[in-house]
Amino acid sequence: MGRKRKLARGVAVVGGGLAKLGLFKDRNCKDFFAEAYEEMIGSVDKGFDPKDIDAVYVGNFTNDFFVRQAHWGPIIADLLGQVPKPITRTEGACASSALAFREGVLAIASGMYDMVLVGGLEQMSLCTTEEVAEGLGMAASPYEVATGYTFPAVFGAMATAYFAKYGATREALFNVTIKSHSNAPLNPKAQFPMSVRDFMNARIERCRKKGEPVPEWRDEKDFLSDPAANPSVAWPMHLFDCCPISDGAACLLLVGEDLARKFTDKPVYVTGIGQGSGYSLHAKEDLTTYEATRAAAKEAYEMSGLTPRDIQFAEVHDCFSIAEIVHMEDLGFVKPGEGHKAVADGMTRLDGPKPINTSGGLKCKGHPVGATGAAQLYEVWLQLRGEAGKRQVRNPNLRVGAAHNLGGTGGTCTFNILERR
Amino acid sequence: MGRKRKLARGVAVVGGGLAKLGLFKDRNCKDFFAEAYEEMIGSVDKGFDPKDIDAVYVGNFTNDFFVRQAHWGPIIADLLGQVPKPITRTEGACASSALAFREGVLAIASGMYDMVLVGGLEQMSLCTTEEVAEGLGMAASPYEVATGYTFPAVFGAMATAYFAKYGATREALFNVTIKSHSNAPLNPKAQFPMSVRDFMNARIERCRKKGEPVPEWRDEKDFLSDPAANPSVAWPMHLFDCCPISDGAACLLLVGEDLARKFTDKPVYVTGIGQGSGYSLHAKEDLTTYEATRAAAKEAYEMSGLTPRDIQFAEVHDCFSIAEIVHMEDLGFVKPGEGHKAVADGMTRLDGPKPINTSGGLKCKGHPVGATGAAQLYEVWLQLRGEAGKRQVRNPNLRVGAAHNLGGTGGTCTFNILERR
Repeated sequence: MGRKRKLARGVAVVGGGLAKLGLFKDRNCKDFFAEAYEEMIGSVDKGFDPKDIDAVYVGNFTNDFFVRQAHWGPIIADLLGQVPKPITRTEGACASSALAFREGVLAIASGMYDMVLVGGLEQMSLCTTEEVAEGLGMAASPYEVATGYTFPAVFGAMATAYFAKYGATREALFNVTIKSHSNAPLNPKAQFPMSVRDFMNARIERCRKKGEPVPEWRDEKDFLSDPAANPSVAWPMHLFDCCPISDGAACLLLVGEDLARKFTDKPVYVTGIGQGSGYSLHAKEDLTTYEATRAAAKEAYEMSGLTPRDIQFAEVHDCFSIAEIVHMEDLGFVKPGEGHKAVADGMTRLDGPKPINTSGGLKCKGHPVGATGAAQLYEVWLQLRGEAGKRQVRNPNLRVGAAHNLGGTGGTCTFNILERR
Repeated sequence: MGRKRKLARGVAVVGGGLAKLGLFKDRNCKDFFAEAYEEMIGSVDKGFDPKDIDAVYVGNFTNDFFVRQAHWGPIIADLLGQVPKPITRTEGACASSALAFREGVLAIASGMYDMVLVGGLEQMSLCTTEEVAEGLGMAASPYEVATGYTFPAVFGAMATAYFAKYGATREALFNVTIKSHSNAPLNPKAQFPMSVRDFMNARIERCRKKGEPVPEWRDEKDFLSDPAANPSVAWPMHLFDCCPISDGAACLLLVGEDLARKFTDKPVYVTGIGQGSGYSLHAKEDLTTYEATRAAAKEAYEMSGLTPRDIQFAEVHDCFSIAEIVHMEDLGFVKPGEGHKAVADGMTRLDGPKPINTSGGLKCKGHPVGATGAAQLYEVWLQLRGEAGKRQVRNPNLRVGAAHNLGGTGGTCTFNILERR
């Protein structure tokens, strides 16, 4: 009741796995989860017995709609050989598996369990694009889609409001896209492991092969400015501002903090968990901020005792390029209206002072909605262990990272802080 | 990891609400939740400030499919004026809101929160019966519906196996139905507040009015044996063995045990929480038992230190009449194979030694799937407070009750024990 949030028991992440993201019509989303689970098992340095998993939480947005199968809990329990243990599905639209993570943390903190598997999954490739749009539309409020506000339209309105309020232009969006796409080729699991320049060169190559006139783009921004290369979806959201449709799964193994060193010498501790809810477009007083993100951030910062300055890198929910800018402001990484400048100044680049979306983000890595929250936390965990390969943040004192996940058009947001000690 | 489950902090129920159940095509399921919430507010004896609610959990099976709207968390948060607080949806098919209850308990036990609202909702009336069957079919395993095993067929197979193993007959099912329907008229919120005799008399009256020959049924069992009155759905499941399609919502207010007496002099404590997962039909070794129910019961009994004998009354998931019998056995209320005899002997009647489904159960009260788990717990809470009106269990020492909730064809089960002290 308004007091400082504190967990009765600390929680640590000791394992993680992420399936390669993409579109896999010929596979079942159980397979994606199995792929992530297998990597997770191998990732636990000192090994563990899956029989010691006490409970499972799995996030999924709407396989009900996408694959006409609901109640994935027991399907996953059976897949993992974990029947008759408790398994619970959480749903908060695109934040579904960050909620699974959170419930896993609370279950251990409560004293109920010692080891909990959390994760998420989604299969979107079996639907037509129109069906995916309809399915995702159900994550928006009843007033949004009914009045024509599909997802790109909602974020387009937000970008327009942001431009008007702070004098930004599409250049700000280009900077986000170019930055994220420069990380993506370094992530072998990304759906689009290509830089914007790679896309540009591929397009030029295609024109040459077809004998068509070759566009003379000066640079990536010139390419992104060309409607032929980057068509409008819902102005100012263009193709390269929008994350793709994806299949995938991710999972993390959580244990009580007191048990962590049994499993690894590199435990990653959960020091702040935050969640908030938000209004839909019609009830928002200001389109350039998310009350749900601010509430989640406040909760997590207070619990951890950290400030935005302490967060050395983060995954920030970039379903659309504008979302990354606005969320950085709501998370306190920069002041309101300063997000677009920070991106332009290189703050968020892999070699910048506060790398954002080292994984490539939803835009490049992919966005299997129910798996995304866990996939973001996997990236933070991997970075904190120094195991992110070519995209590893080059900071010998890397200690604090965070993941921000958004569901719907802002209805559910989470912010979770992980730390090495 | 196999140790005894123990919560770091106890949890109590200090308020509850249940909307009238039925089919309400002209209402929105937000209205049902508002109705339950309003009752809950009035039920907190010493009052409370809704601003003190720290978080909300809401169970829903598949409004995604039933009403083409997902992501109900923020919709409910907005409805209740609780934005930007955390709100999480849980899903475990027909056990969805028992999972919400459980996560609320864990959230308080973890030390994170002091006061959590938990509940559930579902609106099934906007679909055709065929669509409801398709929607519910998604809660079964992928192998069941694909091979023709819709819900009545799965429970029909279970009843057939039970009959074969233990020598029971349809008479056992009649006894369950007659017992539950004798409680229903005492529950003003029941969808069918009628006894089987009421149905029989109504049918006779209808025949008289239409000038049709009046059937000469000797008693309720004779009525239930007549295919004209009680047609087969999936043998031996007949119409009166199957719960209806329903709309509804329910909620409960949870607080830390240490805070309970601030809100009421009659707190009800959560002393055992249990959850399990189960195989689908194709992988079950024995159709006359649910491993998920047994696992949930084991967990809850161990936590509470109670035995089946200590449970004075219970709500037991009776989506089909046979389910009540089998679950009573799995919960240890009677030995395997003895459930049908116990019902015949009157053990489960309102005036019997262990009343089961005093509310009328899913069969008569109604089964708005995502709301059912919370609705069952509401009934147990109400009985323990001595406020169940005409259906109040007449035991001056009523102290321990429990609710058993099943999701799908047995994929998810919960068992929660509540106590007055």
